[in-house]
Amino acid sequence: MTGGPLDRDRLSLNQATVKHLDLAQSVDLCVRHEIPAIGLWRDRVAEAGLRRAAATVRDAGLHVSSLCRGGFFTHPEGPARASALADNRQAIAEAAELGADTLVLVSGGLPCGSRDLALARRMVADAIADLVPTAQQLGVRLGIEPMHPMFCADRCVVSTLGDALDLAFQFPAETVGVVVDTYHVWWDPQLAAQIDRARGRIVSVQLCDWVVPLPADTLLGRGHLGDGVIDFPPVVAGVLAAGYPGFVEIEIFNQDVWDAPADQTAATVRQRFARLLG
Amino acid sequence: MTGGPLDRDRLSLNQATVKHLDLAQSVDLCVRHEIPAIGLWRDRVAEAGLRRAAATVRDAGLHVSSLCRGGFFTHPEGPARASALADNRQAIAEAAELGADTLVLVSGGLPCGSRDLALARRMVADAIADLVPTAQQLGVRLGIEPMHPMFCADRCVVSTLGDALDLAFQFPAETVGVVVDTYHVWWDPQLAAQIDRARGRIVSVQLCDWVVPLPADTLLGRGHLGDGVIDFPPVVAGVLAAGYPGFVEIEIFNQDVWDAPADQTAATVRQRFARLLG
Repeated sequence: MTGGPLDRDRLSLNQATVKHLDLAQSVDLCVRHEIPAIGLWRDRVAEAGLRRAAATVRDAGLHVSSLCRGGFFTHPEGPARASALADNRQAIAEAAELGADTLVLVSGGLPCGSRDLALARRMVADAIADLVPTAQQLGVRLGIEPMHPMFCADRCVVSTLGDALDLAFQFPAETVGVVVDTYHVWWDPQLAAQIDRARGRIVSVQLCDWVVPLPADTLLGRGHLGDGVIDFPPVVAGVLAAGYPGFVEIEIFNQDVWDAPADQTAATVRQRFARLLG
Repeated sequence: MTGGPLDRDRLSLNQATVKHLDLAQSVDLCVRHEIPAIGLWRDRVAEAGLRRAAATVRDAGLHVSSLCRGGFFTHPEGPARASALADNRQAIAEAAELGADTLVLVSGGLPCGSRDLALARRMVADAIADLVPTAQQLGVRLGIEPMHPMFCADRCVVSTLGDALDLAFQFPAETVGVVVDTYHVWWDPQLAAQIDRARGRIVSVQLCDWVVPLPADTLLGRGHLGDGVIDFPPVVAGVLAAGYPGFVEIEIFNQDVWDAPADQTAATVRQRFARLLG
């Protein structure tokens, strides 16, 4: 965590933005482009090996702004739920080893065959309650990420920052917070009010633009800052005014970005972030 | 408007569900399947001619539950805004001639080149204010339709039932209400509370299911009741408890439904509605 005004020392690159690079390559890219922090993904960490991944990042002098991701909690009592909780405990341990500012949690969609959103949302709260002691013990902060309502059925029943906060407030602030990802929340007329309400609870900020028209795979409708319709300055001003002390990650899922050379992507990320700083 | 408990006398078929039929064919289909009301679209009305369309529907003994649609208000002062308002006045006149229970309004997305959602939302309020006297004069009720947040950028900046109500409450209840379309609002954790708050303001109820996975064109991810993840009974119970007296329209945009024979579609609509009635 850094704190203070937003400057280039608070930029982080989420490695999903350069999806085709492995962990060491992503770390090298950040170093080459003087990006001081990185958001990691568990599959790439596992591929490198946890200890080696942690050492690689540390030796490069990079901070780990987030680990993506835990969650997928929406199962009834039984083996699937037990397995999800075990996997999340593992993810918490990984986040601790990596020194990540937060473990990002994506709640999961409706349970298979169910239409009961309220039940699904209770499952999420119950699962987080189960994980809090482990997170406390290992000093890891869990970040509940609201995802765009278009993912409600099959990916994340926590749809707004307000919902995420309602969940987070059930737990201690030092252990459970929320993630503000512009792609998911930009449309919400309550956004400014909810960011204000989130004081002390924002554990991750992820930026990318909303590109029109949406592509066939709605997960990939993200763009570099400025390529879409999102008005970033008020969101950034809001999270800073709410006391958010951490890094600002750029996380872009987009086929064209993935197809571009990684150095070009990193340069664009730097340039657009500088433009945001004004 | 019918009122009382929900029964098959309150079923309406929105003609977009049988998109390839013209107005006379849609009317015949409703008569053949004993569906007592129809939701009309302006392009099909224009094609038939307004007077003739009104006569065709009236002679068949059908009620017009809605006319789709007006709106697309998000323009700065100038010719585009003037043209949108003129077109909406024309739509109000058409709704009056057809005896439609409501004229459905889709607000429009962000103005071209703008990222200012708050401005876009003010443009919608200002445009409705301009239209209210015409609607009052002709006895037409305007229905503000919140659309799913995935359409916020390019189609409708009114994203939740709560937003739509905040707008509607600025105007007299007899002239401005809200549309509850399950495809757009089903995910909202505030839905039940907002339906309750909407007492006296619900002017149209449209049902269709949310099918997983979403197709490439997200406008077409709708399905027959029961083919997706939406839990309809609480929504229907809510709108009835909030005093909604009107018809319940089935409105499905879906390529497979459009490709099916219209009689099969109408039979399925009837059957699924009967199942909902229990």
